[in-house]
This record gives sequence, C-alpha cells and structure tokens, in this order.
Amino acid sequence: MPKMRAAIFVEPGRIVLDEKPIPNIGPLDALVRISTTTICGTDIHILKGEYPVAPGLTIGHEPVGIIEKLGSAVQGYREGQRVIAGAITPSGYSEACLCGCHSQDGAGTKHGWKAMGGWKFGNTIDGCQAEYLRVPDAMANLAPVPDGLTDEQVLMCPDILSTGFSGAESGRIRIGDTVAVFAQGPIGLCATAGAKLMGATTIIAVESLPERIDMSRRMGADHVIDFTKADPVEEIRRLTDGRGVDVSIEALGRQQTFEAALRVLRPGGTLSSLGVYSGDLRIPLDGFLAGLGDYTIRTTLCPGGKERMRRLISAIASGRVDTRPLVTHRFKLDQIEEAYDLFSHQRDGVLKVAIAP
Amino acid sequence: MPKMRAAIFVEPGRIVLDEKPIPNIGPLDALVRISTTTICGTDIHILKGEYPVAPGLTIGHEPVGIIEKLGSAVQGYREGQRVIAGAITPSGYSEACLCGCHSQDGAGTKHGWKAMGGWKFGNTIDGCQAEYLRVPDAMANLAPVPDGLTDEQVLMCPDILSTGFSGAESGRIRIGDTVAVFAQGPIGLCATAGAKLMGATTIIAVESLPERIDMSRRMGADHVIDFTKADPVEEIRRLTDGRGVDVSIEALGRQQTFEAALRVLRPGGTLSSLGVYSGDLRIPLDGFLAGLGDYTIRTTLCPGGKERMRRLISAIASGRVDTRPLVTHRFKLDQIEEAYDLFSHQRDGVLKVAIAP
Amino acid sequence: MPKMRAAIFVEPGRIVLDEKPIPNIGPLDALVRISTTTICGTDIHILKGEYPVAPGLTIGHEPVGIIEKLGSAVQGYREGQRVIAGAITPSGYSEACLCGCHSQDGAGTKHGWKAMGGWKFGNTIDGCQAEYLRVPDAMANLAPVPDGLTDEQVLMCPDILSTGFSGAESGRIRIGDTVAVFAQGPIGLCATAGAKLMGATTIIAVESLPERIDMSRRMGADHVIDFTKADPVEEIRRLTDGRGVDVSIEALGRQQTFEAALRVLRPGGTLSSLGVYSGDLRIPLDGFLAGLGDYTIRTTLCPGGKERMRRLISAIASGRVDTRPLVTHRFKLDQIEEAYDLFSHQRDGVLKVAIAP
Amino acid sequence: MPKMRAAIFVEPGRIVLDEKPIPNIGPLDALVRISTTTICGTDIHILKGEYPVAPGLTIGHEPVGIIEKLGSAVQGYREGQRVIAGAITPSGYSEACLCGCHSQDGAGTKHGWKAMGGWKFGNTIDGCQAEYLRVPDAMANLAPVPDGLTDEQVLMCPDILSTGFSGAESGRIRIGDTVAVFAQGPIGLCATAGAKLMGATTIIAVESLPERIDMSRRMGADHVIDFTKADPVEEIRRLTDGRGVDVSIEALGRQQTFEAALRVLRPGGTLSSLGVYSGDLRIPLDGFLAGLGDYTIRTTLCPGGKERMRRLISAIASGRVDTRPLVTHRFKLDQIEEAYDLFSHQRDGVLKVAIAP
Repeated sequence: MPKMRAAIFVEPGRIVLDEKPIPNIGPLDALVRISTTTICGTDIHILKGEYPVAPGLTIGHEPVGIIEKLGSAVQGYREGQRVIAGAITPSGYSEACLCGCHSQDGAGTKHGWKAMGGWKFGNTIDGCQAEYLRVPDAMANLAPVPDGLTDEQVLMCPDILSTGFSGAESGRIRIGDTVAVFAQGPIGLCATAGAKLMGATTIIAVESLPERIDMSRRMGADHVIDFTKADPVEEIRRLTDGRGVDVSIEALGRQQTFEAALRVLRPGGTLSSLGVYSGDLRIPLDGFLAGLGDYTIRTTLCPGGKERMRRLISAIASGRVDTRPLVTHRFKLDQIEEAYDLFSHQRDGVLKVAIAP
Repeated sequence: MPKMRAAIFVEPGRIVLDEKPIPNIGPLDALVRISTTTICGTDIHILKGEYPVAPGLTIGHEPVGIIEKLGSAVQGYREGQRVIAGAITPSGYSEACLCGCHSQDGAGTKHGWKAMGGWKFGNTIDGCQAEYLRVPDAMANLAPVPDGLTDEQVLMCPDILSTGFSGAESGRIRIGDTVAVFAQGPIGLCATAGAKLMGATTIIAVESLPERIDMSRRMGADHVIDFTKADPVEEIRRLTDGRGVDVSIEALGRQQTFEAALRVLRPGGTLSSLGVYSGDLRIPLDGFLAGLGDYTIRTTLCPGGKERMRRLISAIASGRVDTRPLVTHRFKLDQIEEAYDLFSHQRDGVLKVAIAP
Repeated sequence: MPKMRAAIFVEPGRIVLDEKPIPNIGPLDALVRISTTTICGTDIHILKGEYPVAPGLTIGHEPVGIIEKLGSAVQGYREGQRVIAGAITPSGYSEACLCGCHSQDGAGTKHGWKAMGGWKFGNTIDGCQAEYLRVPDAMANLAPVPDGLTDEQVLMCPDILSTGFSGAESGRIRIGDTVAVFAQGPIGLCATAGAKLMGATTIIAVESLPERIDMSRRMGADHVIDFTKADPVEEIRRLTDGRGVDVSIEALGRQQTFEAALRVLRPGGTLSSLGVYSGDLRIPLDGFLAGLGDYTIRTTLCPGGKERMRRLISAIASGRVDTRPLVTHRFKLDQIEEAYDLFSHQRDGVLKVAIAP
Repeated sequence: MPKMRAAIFVEPGRIVLDEKPIPNIGPLDALVRISTTTICGTDIHILKGEYPVAPGLTIGHEPVGIIEKLGSAVQGYREGQRVIAGAITPSGYSEACLCGCHSQDGAGTKHGWKAMGGWKFGNTIDGCQAEYLRVPDAMANLAPVPDGLTDEQVLMCPDILSTGFSGAESGRIRIGDTVAVFAQGPIGLCATAGAKLMGATTIIAVESLPERIDMSRRMGADHVIDFTKADPVEEIRRLTDGRGVDVSIEALGRQQTFEAALRVLRPGGTLSSLGVYSGDLRIPLDGFLAGLGDYTIRTTLCPGGKERMRRLISAIASGRVDTRPLVTHRFKLDQIEEAYDLFSHQRDGVLKVAIAP
C-alpha cells in the first residue's frame, strides 16, 4: 500500500506532517496529485481546536493538482489533466443541490440536509495538504485549468476568491451601489474585488494593517478607514453624506464588525456576512430599527462545484481580477508546520502561503 | 375652524378622545372622512409609551373612508369616492421609493433615507382614529374600494393583511415549501393566509390561545403547535422528518420566537421577521450554524401605496382570502377608549376591533 | 435475457407494442418496474413524426413504479420502494445543472450544454411505456411516493403538473396578479392551478371545449373565455378595465395564442410560454411596443429531478391541488395502441389516460 | 411672454430651430435652463417620421442644465443648482411606478398603464433641445450634478448610459458570464461598459465601423467581431468552444441582429433587447429550440428618475466608466440643424454630439 506525506490533525495545537496511505477511490471519485495548495483561516480554527475534526484527518481544502486516476464511472476527464476543485464539493444529486443550495449538500441522507454537508475536504473526509487527494463526485467538482495559467494564479479559486466574491453576490450588489467591507484579510480583499467587479461605485474598506490597506486599494477600495484612527460607523456616515451604504460585507466574524456592518446600512440594505462567529451574536436594535428597517442579513458558505470554479478561472484568465499578490510566502510541503506557524501568527505581513509538494 | 373628534395621545398610558380642528390640506393631499378604522398592536406600544410619539398626535394608521376634498394638484380621483390608504404612505418620489424601498420613504431629505420614513399616520403626522384624515401624496396612496365590498372587508388591507402577506413574500415562498409561522395574532394569521396563497404546501403555526388556534386552521395552517404543550422546535423537526422548514415567519417580536424561528430553519432557508423587538436580539450560533448555514434573515415593514392596496383588495374581492372573521368586536368612535382597554388587555378573545365614527 | 413489453416507435405513424429485453443498469442507475404511466402530447408529436426519435426507441416519460434493482453506487433507496421520476432527468453534475438550469443538462460533454439534454426518457434513451424502465442518475431522480397516495394521484407529477406549474413560476406570479392562460389542455389546466397556487387573484382562461371549460373553473379560473364566441384580446381588455394582465401563459404552441398572449400583457408584464412551436414565430410589433414595453418572454421546459418531484407530491398530498379529474380514461399496457388512437384524436373528452402494465 | 429658441418638429424630414415661449410651470414642475444637450437616435426616427410626434413639439430628452425656477410644491432643491433629468421622467405615484415599472408610468389614467408613459420629453411634452425645459414631477426627476463633473461628463446619463447599462442589468449578468453585444453605436458601447461593470468576464462585441471597433475595446470588449469579415454566430460559437453565451444584448433593432443574438445563446440564457424594431420580428425556431430552451427575452426602456441618475453619476464620478470619448462633435444650439444633418447621416465617425445653448 503506497504511502504519501500529509498534514494531519493530531489534537488541538498540533497539525503534523506524517505518512499515510495514498487514498483509494470509488467509481465516482478521482485521485488528484496535488501540485499546489494553501492554508486557510479555517485550518487555523481547526489547529486551535476551535472547530472540531477527527484526529488523524488530513487538513486542507484548496487543491490544485493533476488527475492521477479516475473512478470507473467518471466521464469527461482524462488522466494527466491539471484541475482544481472547490473547497466545497457538492454531489449535485442531493435535495439541497437540486434546489440550488449546493453548499448545504446532504448527499442522500434520509433526514434531509446536513448543515455544511458540502464542505468535506479537511472536515469530514481527508483534505489536500498532502501529496494526493481523493475528490468525491468528481464529475461535479473537477474544473480543468487552462494552460496559460499558473498554479498560483488559480490557487485562490477553491475558497478565498469564491467566498469573497459570494460576499458581493449575496449582497446582490447593483451598479451604483455604495458598499462597505469590514476587514481586509484574504477573504475581505476578495470581497472588495468582487464588489468592484459587480459594479459598486463607492467601496469603503475597514482595516488597520498597513500592507492590507495598500492591498485593499489595489483590489478596488475607493476609501480605506483605519479603525484604529477613526470610528468606522461615523466615518462611513460622513463619507456617504448621512445616507449609509447599500450593502455591507462582514469578513471577520466578530461581534464588533457585525454590529458596525449593520449600523452603517441604509434602511432596506443588505448585510452580507462571510465571517465564522463564535459565542452568540447580538443584533443591536438601534442598528436594526427594531425590526422595521427592511433589512436583509445573509450568510454565505463558499460556493463550490466545477461550474463555479470555471467562472472564477474565467475571471482570472480575463485579467478582471489578479489574486497573485495575495500569495506572500511559499513553502514546500515538508515545511508545512513552519507555514502553519507563520500563518497562524500572521507574521511578516503574510496574506496567503503557497505550498507545493 | 370646524372641529372633529379624534383619539389623541396625551402621555404614556393615556390616549383620549378629544376635539381638534379638521385638518387643512395642501395641493398634493386629500381629506378623507373616516367611515371605519381599527386599533393596531403598534398603537398599544404607543399607548404604553414603548414607542414615542409627540403628545397631541392623533393615533391610528388603518383608514377606510370617503374622499371629502382633494388638493389642487391631485388628479384621478373624485370627491365622494370610497377609498383606503395604506398604513405606510410613500411619496413615490424619494430616492428610497425610486429604488423600490417605498416603506423607507425619505421624501427629499438631503441626508437621504429616514428610517421608517414611510410610516406617517399616527407616527409623524395625525392619524385616522378621528372623523377626518389628511392623506399626504394622495395620488400615490388612495385606493378606491369597489362597491361590492364592505368597509370591514377591506379594513385589514392598510396594515394587517399587507404586513402579514409581506411576511410570506419576503420569505420568497415557493410552491411546495414548508413554512412555520410563529404566533397567530392578527398579523401572524395573515402571514399564514399569505403563505397558503403563495403555494406553501405544509404550513405549521405556533400558538396557544384556543380561538387563535382555530382561526389559524381556518386561514390555512396544516398543523398548529400549542407551545404550552410541546416544544415547537422539536415538534417541527418531527413534523418535517428532521428536515426543517424552508421559511419561518416571526410574527411576535420576542427573543424566544425569533430564536425558535431560526432553529427550525433548514440550511439555506429564510427567516422572515415581522416582529417589532425591544432590547437587543441574540442570534444563537447553533441555530445560525456559526454563519455557515446560507441563511437569510429579512425584516419587512408593512408595504403601502395605492398599488399594494389595489392588489390586496383584489385578493379580498376574489374570495382568495377573507379577513372578516378577524373583526371580533365593534365600537363607535365615542367608545374608542373602551376599545383600547379591551384590545390592549386582549380580553374576550379579541383579534381586531372595528371602529366607526 | 428476460424480455418485457414496450411501446416502440417504428416509423412516423407507428408506435407498436412489442417485446424487447429488460434494460441492464449501470452503477448510477435504477431499474423501475412500471406500475402506471400515461401518454403525453409530445408522444403524439413523435408518433406523427413531427419530433424525430430513433426507430426502436421505447416511448414515454411519465413513470410511476417500484424500484426493482439499484445500481452498485446508488445509496439512499431500497428495492421495493414506490417512486416516480420526472420526465426530465438531470444528472446534477453537468455545468448546466450546477448553475441551476437542470432541464438543459449536458452531462459532461466537452462542448457544454446540449439543448434539452435533460429530457432523456423516450427521447434519447428508452422510455417508460413499458414494463421496466432504466432510470439514469437515480440518486438525482427517484422520488419516493408516500403510502397514502395512489399511483394516479401522482401520475401528473413527472410532466404535466411540473410543466404547468412552471408556467406560473416562470411568470413570477405574485399575490394580486391578473393572469391569462391560453388553452386548457392538461398542461394549461395545471398552469391555471399553478397560477392560483401562487396567489394570482384574477385568472382568465381561454378555451372552447365545454369539458375543458368546466375543468378550468375547477382548477381555479375566475373567468373562462370561449374563443369561438368572443375575441380573447378584446374580452381580456374589458375584464381588466383596459389594464391588461400581469402575466400571460401560452400553453398550446401556436402563432395565434402566442400573439394574443403578448397583446393582452400590460407594459412590464411577462409572457410565460410552455408551448412547443413549429415553423417560425412572429412577434407582432404593436403587441410588443416595438421593443419598448419592458416585456419579458420566458420559455420553460418541464423541471425535473427528485426535489422537484418531492415538492409536487407535497402539493398533492396536502390537498392543495388534485389532478385526479384529469385522468379520464384507463387502459392496460396491452391496449396502448388503442390509447394512442383515442388520445391522438382527442376523442371522448379525453384529457389524460392512465396506463397500467 | 418671454421667448426662447427651440428645435421643433415641423413635419417628417424637418426639425427646425425656431422661437417659442419659455414654458410655464405648475406646482410640481421645475424650469431648467439647458446648458448642454444632445441628439439621440430616437430623435432621428422622429425626424424621419418613423416615430410620430405632434407638429410643433420641441424635440430632445437628454438635459443638463441649471434650475431656473421651482414649482410651488417642490421641496429639496434650490434655484441655481446644476442638475440632470432622465430621458424618462416617472411621476413616482402611478400604479406602474409603485410596482417598480417606472418607465411605463401611467400617471393616474383610469385605464391603467399607458405604454411608454414614462417617456415624456420630446414625445408627449416639449423636450430639451431648447434654452429652457419644463421638468414634470421635479422631485422624482431632478438629480444634482457634483461640482467636480463637467456637463459633458454627465451628458450620457439621461439616456445612453442608462439604456446601455439596462441592457446588461436586464440580462442579469453575473460574475463569470460570457456576453455578446450586437452593434456598438452609443447604446451598444454603453451596454459593453455595463457588461464589464457587472462582472462579465468574456465580452464579445459585433460591429464593423473601425472607430466603433476601437471604442468597443476601450469600453470593455474582449473580442470584437467585424460582421463584414466573419459570421458572428459561427465566430461566437468558436470563441465559446461551442458553449454559446450566457447573455446576448441586442442594441440595434433589426431582425438580423435579433436573430443572431438568439442563436448564439446557450440554453437557459437571456436575450436582452434594447433595439427599437420596425415591422414584425421573427423568432427563428431553431435558435429558440422550438420553445424548449428555457430562454428569456427581455426588452428594456431607458430607466429614469433621480435615483437612477444619481447612480449613473456615481459611476462616472468614481471613474468606473468614462463616456467623454463618445462625444465626438460639438455644436451651438444655433447650429442644431447642422448637427442633425451630421448625426442622421453618421458622417465623420460621429458617435454623439454635444449641443450648448
């Protein structure tokens, strides 16, 4: 039974590189040899034990690689093809998928929809911080990468770009909208890029780290508010002449940003929430107009599936958005523990790391 | 200066019937002689001082009446016509109106949209618990009542029916949806009727008062859960075979019902909130899947305007919905203090009262 | 190799009952023993040679039956379960499916989306007017039938009810809409029922056959115009007080009805087209306001997939709609040539036939 | 009675500059002193007698100017303010407006919605190719122009930019869409800009004039097909690898472009039509998949109203789009007949003219 190296969750505080068998595949699966992957903020939650996964699980949900082997029932691909798969891998055939809610894939369970059922890699099945990855429901999930694009150019598509764009999409941004984006980490930066791509004509980002403030402007922010220097709510009211924003995007997952995102919203506006929260969340009633403000609050889990990946790759290939500047550091798979250390402590201005086996 | 009788807010705890001048009208206004009106739960909030209005204000926002006089610039109506106007009276020409958010009408203010700007009657201008009412922006707000319909048949259109239906509409109910409606007061009952009218095929209502339970079935509920006898969350899970509901409608404005409405929702579902809350509102993270459940929370303020009223009248005229059973008690305007007393204490199985000057 | 009886297309004008082998199934398929099926207007187009299919093909796309055998990769079902499958059987994993356009399933073809790729039964693969049926992508398509419902109660779900309802859904009918439905054959009747189920408060049907006029009222029409006695366009203008309808549904597939459906539409309205047209279709510019009327014309192919079927079954089970009266005649599979004869000549007031092997 | 100069329609073939009285205004109107205006393709239809208007009418519907006087009931503006108004001037209070269909404003007529009722300037009331303009329903229509922007920068907002963008908006373009735009006149160019602004990642324009081909690339086209050198349908199939486009925009108003726009569409796609057609329009059934392709055809009349103008001005002010290059020629009002001559014959590479009184 051939072995491979993989980043494995052992216990809270410990993700280690170890050997485990190369995965077997079933009729609907594909085996992908990973050429590039990365670490996500969610992986840090797992590392810290804030999000529980089974000990022994391979971590990682952002794969770029080469098809090594196809399941017996898989058609439409060939071995040797370079592909990505989304962090979320919908089956396509669950009730949730069939009514358009692919991220909440429940895959044939009797009792319907399993929350986050679409997020499998590094959550309920082995992930991609490894030499090889089993991709379930391959026909719904493998998206070919055009020759002209490097691995790093498409590395953000599986999660960061898909999630960030969905923040803009779930906000239903329209041409001429004023949009606020709270936090400019990798996902917030992609939300900013998405807001611009959808036609927002005033984008106000909120961030304090200098390198992220710079990157924010580069991704499309018209104004960046350093929240250590000014109150974002007051500043946004001023910038919008008292009007508020049409859409605000929360990209951090904290009470404070959620609350501010609500307070800056014009009546009838939408709060598009991307954050993963811990503890309860409070809705301040003044910011909510006691329930009378015609507000919408919408949360979105990273959209996946091959068609979503195709569209994101197309955004990259057309030059509409360029996520290469987000890759600030590069590691070999052998150095992944070092990469986790850097990334979890947000040292050295890190935004995203690229990891190549 | 001719006088009329009107129900006037004096101070918290006191709404009294008194005399005040018949309103003057401007070029865009109409003067309506009230033939029937009613008391709303919101009026009780005003009575109790929970929602502040100016002392001396005439209360009431649900008018049925006869056009007494038209402003000089008003076209398309004639004096003597029987009309209703919505509780919310959009101008039609504000930025908010022009982008479809009529309830949040800001009517030309420099600093944009004033929250709830559309709610004027008995809030920012004199209301309709009186012999006469000034209707602003008459051309946007007066809806003729067909001869075949009585005052009481259309009495719920200005607020209760419009709000209740909007609970279903904002939930974007589709054919085949399973819907839960929390609380079966007048608005919750109309939300139930709206859910049925939009094609929900399983409607689960939550209520404890026997007469409201009966009325709930009459308005379209397939199941009614008495929350004093069973836990609604558990019961709804059981009724939906673990699946949860597609849409839940909150029609009370309490932490407990809001929370339950969220917990019974399937991933990807919508919580449509009609309640007016006090104090902060907590989002329980287990019910919210920490922000990863693709949930939508949408609040809606009663839609108004003459086209909305026309559509609601059409729903009544076609027999699709009948709100007459909601009128459980009748009073003369002279007896309005007695009516407030009955209604505010929810005595004698009262649902809605009809008040005729 | 065990044999079964099946209705086979031989050549234009000839569909015959003959023997052919019971289908083999692959890992994703299911074999269903048909208990009840029916004949569709589309089958008549095939019979007449107006819609070409391969000689030797088994016809029929409306199956009710019992799972006889499941493919090796199929989970979530058990043999012996009573099920239906939609006329359209999306894979769930094609690009088309993944962006919500399940009917236009292209199933992994390199060159993307094949028109009507979702319609397979009796079109590109063997259909269900037979003793046994192979259902592809079973996990996306098999919908269990609750014990309380008879075969005939769910017999319209696979096509007629799904198509008819989609006429209303694609029209985006809202509470209070006025809707016209042109032609009250089985699909038009289900469109009428769908319009009512979605909250249309004035439904005007156009039809001339007495039994269909009666059935139309039963399914929800408020007015039925006999086009042999009055001009529907004039009559609808009169009934709507010159206003026109919000949504018109074309359920026949003729130039004349398409044109009338456009002419009766208010500016900004939607023509929802269900018809299958032959020859070119002309858009009359007066009815189209030369392109300036903010009109939408939308065509819809019968939505399929197990989640759609679940919802339709729920509409039946809840009593919201009852399609049993549409089954006017019953035959054994042995008599299917006779059934084709009756149905293709629309003799004896036939609406739909039930065929039981 | 003070006089002004105005471009007046006399009879087919003759628009002349003549004197007429400066308009009187009513309580809801504003009088605007025109500082810059332009000529539209629609004006040429009027000139040629293809679109009938009353002799004596002042032509023009694209005004930039200064508020000279406000009606007695108009609030929220001051005399001397620089403003624009849309080509379409909704009242805000008609049934059509109140249900979001502002362009089809019917303004209180008993018999409902008058087609194109929102287009008043140079159609049903005097237009803006004059020294002064009466703007009806001023509070719904006047949009202030920020000091930093020149007249020419906002000159395209009233019609060309609003119409062009609406082509993209009515196509419901999403991030990653492939879009074809047929014809790159001023409106087609703005549709191209709108498609880019909404996130289309592959934009294919069809045009033959060299200067328009250049401008098309500048506005966002990734590919431009010269239809005199290649068949657009074949070429688009090739460019999309057989897949077709998600959205096609027709910006000419001819059978040939309409037909091609339909043929290049993927099943499930949307044809967004901006053209004004003459004669009947044929839908080719092969391009329409006989009604089974899940297609949407949507036509859009230029959206107007002050909120729309505010959003377009914001798109200009933010630098997201720059329409200055479209102004290729400049004239004084005295030279307007010369301007008509140049523009109607499309001489000298003209795209749009600016006319300053």
